Amino acid sequence: MAKINLHYGDIKESYLFSEIAKRVNEYKENHPDADIIRMGIGDVTQPLVESVVDGLVSASKEMGKKETFHGYGPEQGYSFLKEKIVQYYQSEFGVELDPAEVFISDGAKSDIANVTDLFSNENVVCVPDPVYPVYLDTNLMLGRKVVYLQGNESNGFLPLPTPETEGDIFYLCSPNNPTGATYSREQLRVCVNFALERDAVILFDAAYERFVSEDLPRSIFEIEGAKKCAIEFCSLSKTAGFTGTRCGYTIVPLELVRQGMSLNKMWLRRQTTKFNGVSYIVQRGAERVFCEKGLSEISAVLAVYQENARIIANTLRELGIWFSGGVNSPYIWLKCPNGMTSWEFFDFLLDKARVVGTPGSGFGECGEGYFRLTAFSTKDNTVEAMRRIKTIL
Amino acid sequence: MAKINLHYGDIKESYLFSEIAKRVNEYKENHPDADIIRMGIGDVTQPLVESVVDGLVSASKEMGKKETFHGYGPEQGYSFLKEKIVQYYQSEFGVELDPAEVFISDGAKSDIANVTDLFSNENVVCVPDPVYPVYLDTNLMLGRKVVYLQGNESNGFLPLPTPETEGDIFYLCSPNNPTGATYSREQLRVCVNFALERDAVILFDAAYERFVSEDLPRSIFEIEGAKKCAIEFCSLSKTAGFTGTRCGYTIVPLELVRQGMSLNKMWLRRQTTKFNGVSYIVQRGAERVFCEKGLSEISAVLAVYQENARIIANTLRELGIWFSGGVNSPYIWLKCPNGMTSWEFFDFLLDKARVVGTPGSGFGECGEGYFRLTAFSTKDNTVEAMRRIKTIL
Repeated sequence: MAKINLHYGDIKESYLFSEIAKRVNEYKENHPDADIIRMGIGDVTQPLVESVVDGLVSASKEMGKKETFHGYGPEQGYSFLKEKIVQYYQSEFGVELDPAEVFISDGAKSDIANVTDLFSNENVVCVPDPVYPVYLDTNLMLGRKVVYLQGNESNGFLPLPTPETEGDIFYLCSPNNPTGATYSREQLRVCVNFALERDAVILFDAAYERFVSEDLPRSIFEIEGAKKCAIEFCSLSKTAGFTGTRCGYTIVPLELVRQGMSLNKMWLRRQTTKFNGVSYIVQRGAERVFCEKGLSEISAVLAVYQENARIIANTLRELGIWFSGGVNSPYIWLKCPNGMTSWEFFDFLLDKARVVGTPGSGFGECGEGYFRLTAFSTKDNTVEAMRRIKTIL
Repeated sequence: MAKINLHYGDIKESYLFSEIAKRVNEYKENHPDADIIRMGIGDVTQPLVESVVDGLVSASKEMGKKETFHGYGPEQGYSFLKEKIVQYYQSEFGVELDPAEVFISDGAKSDIANVTDLFSNENVVCVPDPVYPVYLDTNLMLGRKVVYLQGNESNGFLPLPTPETEGDIFYLCSPNNPTGATYSREQLRVCVNFALERDAVILFDAAYERFVSEDLPRSIFEIEGAKKCAIEFCSLSKTAGFTGTRCGYTIVPLELVRQGMSLNKMWLRRQTTKFNGVSYIVQRGAERVFCEKGLSEISAVLAVYQENARIIANTLRELGIWFSGGVNSPYIWLKCPNGMTSWEFFDFLLDKARVVGTPGSGFGECGEGYFRLTAFSTKDNTVEAMRRIKTIL
């Protein structure tokens, strides 16, 4: 008899964003004319920049000609793109990488989820709370023990491990999703030293690195020793609007060894066995992100979102509502007013202002009583949403 | 301390095709002028058809305009493509599917590998020998017990389970990679009934279904009862030259339930948690495959490969060499002449004819002494390779 993975029973059946979609659809059915502004799911609204579209179109045409057709590519990604990422790390973060440390992915989510393959189920996994639900769910699906680093207003939702912290594998997300809080160099140094001392591994999610505008680390590898204890995941989803185009990259350092095995070699083996690489067309589009013209075009798009974040932050400041994020991040994490729970505030905001946000409790128990708004809407919608919020609070 | 998945030590470090690439590169270094013909890896050589390129180009352009930009799509794939696949199953196989049973993937390899997530490590896994190495490797990586259904000349490399066969999860590949052998309806009925009797699950790899030219089943769901015991994986890689474009689909029937859990719901949960869908652009390209024009264009491309297969088969027949496949499959599986082992014949063929094939032993112990040639080369190269082979055998 085929025995299923019963750990699937340990996770909630409905994924956070499906529940939001359901409530919004119900609201729309009852209020068909409601002019709803969506600041819930972290999806971008600006189109791909010109350079990227040019890259995609010309690669699509190449695929139609025998002389320039591309069949199977290297599972770990084409050199033309890996080299660009090596240069990006060098020029943006001062981090030197070997191209063999760079793996092209179809997005950070897949790799963050699939990296669990490399580790034994005996590990204790430590995740910040609140945080992106994928870290928790993918480990619960494997029956792994999960402990939490608790975020709260006093630590600015930037929890750090202490000597009492249990854990062999640590997830960190900075700038954080959902809180927008960003670790300082000194704080990341604490995490890296902690991991080095106990031979732990840090899984570092840098999906929002390009939103960092202050002097804060954007890659874990800016911290000395991190190559001996960390894997970094990055994505073009928010950097360049690739949420529907699908491309990211994962850095697995050659120096990262546990129990005598190179995690870089293990990941290469995982990817060559269980993956067939990202579409050639998409990789050619992604390559253009890292060209001079592409980088300047994506900065212009990011400026739109950054201004939205400022508009939201200013409104909350005016209203005297506690919040984090909004400066180095497209996310604003706020305390629900009048002691409302996260879902109470969700319903209140939807009903009174026709604005959709994300209940903080969906990101972990410590998120209860908090709420996430995203800066990914258009400027007009952001301004209008803030106007409505001011009238009801 | 982070504990790694030590089962990675149980698999050979080098993937079959990497070893072939290594030997070919060494040969090229020593014979820089050698005019090598590659009939080893199953990669296509014909470009994408016009309809598909049109779909890719126009979707790429859509992504550059705010009004037609697409962000996150449904993880399980867009309806426009799922509906086309439902129609394809209806018109080609007479199989009725619910769109909720269709999941768009970035290729059959990923889904065949990732479906292991749904099952407990306590299962005994049964794989045919010889077969596509991914079935074996992905299960060894999880430390699962693997048993074999032995293929040989007397069963035409179409092994069937018997009452003594151990196993909870069965992999089947028909038309088979590497042997090209294709199960009959009666044979698949034996497999389905066997699986139903013991509540096993069949993982059916139909990647080569479109090469079937005789009256043989192309989908496991043509067999009564299969929806209660099988998952089917399909790919556009060989059907439409998508090896570098990356798109496939997986059918998980709503009726497939084990231990009270719906495998369809489990897979949906797996995909929504660990995957973010296939690129919108690629899905728009894939959609065109299933339009009338696209289907006729891909048939013309397949005819090229089918003729190559006939040319190879005729040559082997002339030489009196035993082989299977070549009729309903792009693969020809031959017995190495003069009692050579698979790798001996590989070296012999490379050295004497500058033709690269795939050693049968790379597909399992029962493949020792056999060899795979593919029909994916150009017609000119296929003719020339056969001419050379005739002069040395």
